[in-house]
Amino acid sequence: MAEENQKEEKRIDDNVIYVGKKGIMNYVMAAITQINKGEKEIHVKARGRSISKAVDVVELLRNRFEPDIKVENIEIGTEEVEADEGGKINVSTIDIVLKK
Amino acid sequence: MAEENQKEEKRIDDNVIYVGKKGIMNYVMAAITQINKGEKEIHVKARGRSISKAVDVVELLRNRFEPDIKVENIEIGTEEVEADEGGKINVSTIDIVLKK
Repeated sequence: MAEENQKEEKRIDDNVIYVGKKGIMNYVMAAITQINKGEKEIHVKARGRSISKAVDVVELLRNRFEPDIKVENIEIGTEEVEADEGGKINVSTIDIVLKK
Repeated sequence: MAEENQKEEKRIDDNVIYVGKKGIMNYVMAAITQINKGEKEIHVKARGRSISKAVDVVELLRNRFEPDIKVENIEIGTEEVEADEGGKINVSTIDIVLKK
């Protein structure tokens, strides 16, 4: 679970933003921070119900803050995760690649 | 609003599946129905919080029922919709294009 929580946090040490339970603007700001650092490619990733929020983050970023950003690619997939009650469940994933 | 509700329903008269408030399997079955009718290209569309469900629909369809289906393209966008309280709000959208 420790690893799980870590994944939910935004990371500013690489070019991947994991969208989780925080407010949308947290992730938008994280993306802007990375762009201002000179990152040319950013991945916005999410799993399960946070997928909708990941799309909101990208749309808000593009429409309000960084009009030069292009969506380079979007991939969806499935990951097996440990359920809290034990056993494994499948969770959908999204990886939105942004290019400046 | 009548038109709005119609959009939320699955349609089986063309190759677009609008994912809304129903259970995931309703939309999976709608997709399978279209494939069995001979449709080579299907669009799975959703707005707002239903976006995560649209991804679930596609992943379930591919992994369990139709392994030959490929995700051809995914587009995200923003639509302006009338808020129930009046005024306009922006809603994120997704359009997942599947090819057999």
